[in-house]
Amino acid sequence: MTDKPAVEYRHVYEFHIRFGDIDSQGHVNNVKFLGYLEDARLEMFHGDPVRKGEEPVRGMVISRHEIDYRLPLLPTVYPIRVETWVTEARAASFKLAYEVRDDDNVYAEATSTLVAFDVEANRLRRFTPHERDFIGRYMAPAPDRR
Amino acid sequence: MTDKPAVEYRHVYEFHIRFGDIDSQGHVNNVKFLGYLEDARLEMFHGDPVRKGEEPVRGMVISRHEIDYRLPLLPTVYPIRVETWVTEARAASFKLAYEVRDDDNVYAEATSTLVAFDVEANRLRRFTPHERDFIGRYMAPAPDRR
Amino acid sequence: MTDKPAVEYRHVYEFHIRFGDIDSQGHVNNVKFLGYLEDARLEMFHGDPVRKGEEPVRGMVISRHEIDYRLPLLPTVYPIRVETWVTEARAASFKLAYEVRDDDNVYAEATSTLVAFDVEANRLRRFTPHERDFIGRYMAPAPDRR
Amino acid sequence: MTDKPAVEYRHVYEFHIRFGDIDSQGHVNNVKFLGYLEDARLEMFHGDPVRKGEEPVRGMVISRHEIDYRLPLLPTVYPIRVETWVTEARAASFKLAYEVRDDDNVYAEATSTLVAFDVEANRLRRFTPHERDFIGRYMAPAPDRR
Repeated sequence: MTDKPAVEYRHVYEFHIRFGDIDSQGHVNNVKFLGYLEDARLEMFHGDPVRKGEEPVRGMVISRHEIDYRLPLLPTVYPIRVETWVTEARAASFKLAYEVRDDDNVYAEATSTLVAFDVEANRLRRFTPHERDFIGRYMAPAPDRR
Repeated sequence: MTDKPAVEYRHVYEFHIRFGDIDSQGHVNNVKFLGYLEDARLEMFHGDPVRKGEEPVRGMVISRHEIDYRLPLLPTVYPIRVETWVTEARAASFKLAYEVRDDDNVYAEATSTLVAFDVEANRLRRFTPHERDFIGRYMAPAPDRR
Repeated sequence: MTDKPAVEYRHVYEFHIRFGDIDSQGHVNNVKFLGYLEDARLEMFHGDPVRKGEEPVRGMVISRHEIDYRLPLLPTVYPIRVETWVTEARAASFKLAYEVRDDDNVYAEATSTLVAFDVEANRLRRFTPHERDFIGRYMAPAPDRR
Repeated sequence: MTDKPAVEYRHVYEFHIRFGDIDSQGHVNNVKFLGYLEDARLEMFHGDPVRKGEEPVRGMVISRHEIDYRLPLLPTVYPIRVETWVTEARAASFKLAYEVRDDDNVYAEATSTLVAFDVEANRLRRFTPHERDFIGRYMAPAPDRR
């Protein structure tokens, strides 16, 4: 049993493991976890807002990932989820933290650094006020306030 | 607009396109469609029965695929589905037909030949009565009865 | 033992199996074979000509694949190859045949139909004389002349 | 231009980018880099020794990855390589460092922590003397001796 998950500032992306995610050792391959984080971010910044009629957040590149594998994730017919929140927000970058988990277990914990990028001009940019507001919704409270 | 989909003998597997399914031309890569068919089969023969407390069907290998790409499948925040049914059932093999589609369009049509296989003995086998019954549920009526 | 492979009109693409190509049954997943064909085509029509200073052939889309799985392809530290040749050439489409093989075994045989496509105009096009010439180099002799 | 690569204690794994590694932004997707590291490890600990008639090193699990993306990796008809070396070796774990690079550029730098694992007994184990020796060959000299 673990901490109560999915507090309010966390984005929750639920998904099903695909057969192709399982490797020859019979569990989800370590590489595939980064794909789960990618799809969680895509839902958080694009899919969710688009379905709500909101402006999505685009124009970011991944600068860094850290990931710790906690437990092997075995094939299951039930959904898994990625919970994602913001731990640090700056003018031109921010950090996400993630848990890949179900109700009972955390299979991996990760963080990513994302940088605002102007694809057309091919250079770094600053986040817009709308983007800063969007990112702020997922900002975790400071540890001493939890 | 297309034919009314998802008649009763069709298995329906709904899924979301992943970012990694999109290739450099901006649509779902042709290879990934076979993965969608794989996950549809896995749901049909394993996930669905397991969640219902039924015996899943295991021990089959793919012998052949045919796939026709009808329309480019673009990234979307809405689900896509694979509809799957049986077109031919024999003692040791059967054929599946599939449509990868949404309500409005068919993106690909495909067929697969699957063969009953005894993995431990490493040789072909015959389907059990339970398996034949399971497969029979998805048997499309003969064309003249549609 | 099989027919002598790699006759002159066949394009040969050699590759190494990746760990991620192996599925939970311990052999190369059926879906991954289509990726091997894709990379063989890319080498044939793009990589090879570019390295020789020739004009590559672009602007084609996949219309259809057929693939027959002959033998399980197990992980190996030695290279595997795709041999590819042309079986039919028309003004706006052509057919490729492939073998996924090593010196001793054919693991899969496949065919693809490719269609000339003008990506910018988003419509079918005819092959240029250069493209027809390029495709013609890989045309298999008629069966009665083998 | 960068530091002279591939000093003696580094393992060098050369590979070709696959079409499926390229994402909709036209460069190698960030997730795929972890797959390159995986294949580099597999060559280092399995493929290379097997081809030389040596005992491969098996029975390890990934505990952690860190990866920094330095430059976008664009499709190329020339090979890319992963250079891998050991930065820390303990009784039951070790750390690898990697560069994904060509002669001119480093596209990503990464580290992994691997743990010796007894798959059958499903528990941590200690490395054998042969394994410690094997790992030791790739131990980078201490920084002050470079």
